[in-house]
Amino acid sequence: MTAAGGMAASGWGVALTPTPVRDPTRIQGIPPSSLGARSLHETLERLPAYNFLSLTPLESLHGTITPADLHFERHHGGIPQIDPGNHELLIHGMVDKPLKFSLDDLKRFPSVTRICFLECSGNLNTRAEEQSSPQMLCGLTSQSEWTGVALSTLFREVGVRPKASWFLAEGSDAAVMTRSIPLDKAWDDALVVYAQNGEAIRPEQGYPMRLLLPGWEGNTNIKWLRRLELSDAPFMTREETSKYTDPLNDGTARMFSVVMDARSVITSPTFPKQLEKGWQEIRGIAWSGRGRIKMVEVSVDGGKRWQTAHLQGPVMAKAHTRFTLPWHWDGKPAEISSRATDETGYVQPTRRQLINARGRGSQPYHLNPVMAWIIQADGQVIYKADPWT
Amino acid sequence: MTAAGGMAASGWGVALTPTPVRDPTRIQGIPPSSLGARSLHETLERLPAYNFLSLTPLESLHGTITPADLHFERHHGGIPQIDPGNHELLIHGMVDKPLKFSLDDLKRFPSVTRICFLECSGNLNTRAEEQSSPQMLCGLTSQSEWTGVALSTLFREVGVRPKASWFLAEGSDAAVMTRSIPLDKAWDDALVVYAQNGEAIRPEQGYPMRLLLPGWEGNTNIKWLRRLELSDAPFMTREETSKYTDPLNDGTARMFSVVMDARSVITSPTFPKQLEKGWQEIRGIAWSGRGRIKMVEVSVDGGKRWQTAHLQGPVMAKAHTRFTLPWHWDGKPAEISSRATDETGYVQPTRRQLINARGRGSQPYHLNPVMAWIIQADGQVIYKADPWT
Repeated sequence: MTAAGGMAASGWGVALTPTPVRDPTRIQGIPPSSLGARSLHETLERLPAYNFLSLTPLESLHGTITPADLHFERHHGGIPQIDPGNHELLIHGMVDKPLKFSLDDLKRFPSVTRICFLECSGNLNTRAEEQSSPQMLCGLTSQSEWTGVALSTLFREVGVRPKASWFLAEGSDAAVMTRSIPLDKAWDDALVVYAQNGEAIRPEQGYPMRLLLPGWEGNTNIKWLRRLELSDAPFMTREETSKYTDPLNDGTARMFSVVMDARSVITSPTFPKQLEKGWQEIRGIAWSGRGRIKMVEVSVDGGKRWQTAHLQGPVMAKAHTRFTLPWHWDGKPAEISSRATDETGYVQPTRRQLINARGRGSQPYHLNPVMAWIIQADGQVIYKADPWT
Repeated sequence: MTAAGGMAASGWGVALTPTPVRDPTRIQGIPPSSLGARSLHETLERLPAYNFLSLTPLESLHGTITPADLHFERHHGGIPQIDPGNHELLIHGMVDKPLKFSLDDLKRFPSVTRICFLECSGNLNTRAEEQSSPQMLCGLTSQSEWTGVALSTLFREVGVRPKASWFLAEGSDAAVMTRSIPLDKAWDDALVVYAQNGEAIRPEQGYPMRLLLPGWEGNTNIKWLRRLELSDAPFMTREETSKYTDPLNDGTARMFSVVMDARSVITSPTFPKQLEKGWQEIRGIAWSGRGRIKMVEVSVDGGKRWQTAHLQGPVMAKAHTRFTLPWHWDGKPAEISSRATDETGYVQPTRRQLINARGRGSQPYHLNPVMAWIIQADGQVIYKADPWT
């Protein structure tokens, strides 16, 4: 089984046995290994989609932290294999003193740790059918505790010239991914991170270093970061002109629409869960790129009435926030949905509001509609599918 | 290499190549896998000690979350292999209605998520020599985001009788580990948890369910939890009479000394680090079983003068809290140490204060002394060893 794949390789010759033991107190257990491993009875994996992304199994997770090996991925040139001894970050352009930083250099600067979400702006499967799980619908969001250096620290080290107002961030993957970022984000909360959930960030997340722009669309959080160039204008790269823009219904398009709007997703009960009558807990996650989640409302009657869900603290800015609501299911068909409000007062829109603003034919960026799940009389939970295009 | 052991087993036939690539932009990277994996250039593993414990590599970690596969372990009968379909938690004794709960039952109750540390009360190697890392000295502390059910919720379900004041917690390992817990802890913040860092807790951490007593010594957080028996007195098990008591200098011993006192540990620079002159950051973690860390002080001159370190927020109760202090090392020999104060005003004691209170021959439980590291003129960092016994 995939979930236990690490065991054989990680120990000191100790193998797990899948043989069921009726009374585990009657048999000596196995000793510790150099690395722990998952239970053979748990299956956790990311679904592949094409060969350039993988999806976090939101419906299988608890709390708010995403295990590093289940963090979603979205690549444009695959995962490069980088030896940190060969890797440097160059900061140049409109600066007083261009500098290169190795990984070891970065680790000598004052460190900053924060928990925040990272979401791809294309995080909605607009063609999903009824038998779709949250992972399949919107598994391109994950959350980690990140550690690195404030970008402002590095920019003060090189000395930013007064006229600089943008910077280019460039990755060292085969796509040489590049995005233009307003300089204000560096003075606000941007980081160059080298650690995730306590350990070194992993190759698929940008090892040895990535840009982290809390609350901003995943694509701008350049992985395998190798270059930052300061300028007085955006660079108009492919990824912010032909891609990652949002066509509007009036024929124009939004550009540099990088902040992720508030959103909530129910993670239980959802497809493929089979519900039993009685008390359960409706659970989900909510987040906003603009700050803290203020409120999540849940409806169990198709949006007629809404109840305020409990938010699990501490509620952190730009972070997945767990919401819960106890619910007694009486066995009759029901429709459940959730709606987030963030601290700016922004309310998660309906599908109809989004279509009115963006049209049906738009590229699926920044689509954060209220989603609904139908509980059938037999307890089967299905997605209330309504294809976008 | 061990750290990358998961890759071969976790993907869709894609193998990592350790071949160094000078310019990774010139070669297509590898596609995503069902599970991510660590870089071949990072080695992370727990050291074994005998065959019943493993140690978290504190000096290799960043932030506050411990990756689940690096959480310390301490077993008394090895790790049992439990099929959750065969596992139930019985709550009985002085209750109105004894009940059994399956894992699925627990997941229907209102869930609670919290980040807290878990530390073995024997977390000091009192015979450590100079060439010891934090992992080797005190790697029996780790931190996770735990999710489960409040024990108070389950106790309300069974109806606790008015005279009950203690409960026994029993595990289903080969040691049938048992401890007596004052009932007040259940009404306060005890949990029965089934998830850790987002995923199901792992076999070595008590799969499918464990008791979690935030701030209390690890041994009381019974893994593989199968039975809770309410009573009007403690049960005086082996683990709270002959073991897990603290001999005092006057010939008596403390019993049920379960709260972990405030402590801090520098994690960088420490052995085996080789320091370079100039600016660095002194980093470490501090925690208290009694609440929030209020202050961490750092000395770089052998304890003559103390500076207040920065605490990385949010500072949570009963949680590892990251502290940092920028430091310019001038290349001369130095001695660095840290001292924690928690919100109750308790100050981490010196080694001398502990020996005066507990004697040199005591069992090494609840020893949380201020520890020191010596920076030699050549930059080598060593532990200021002074064996206890």
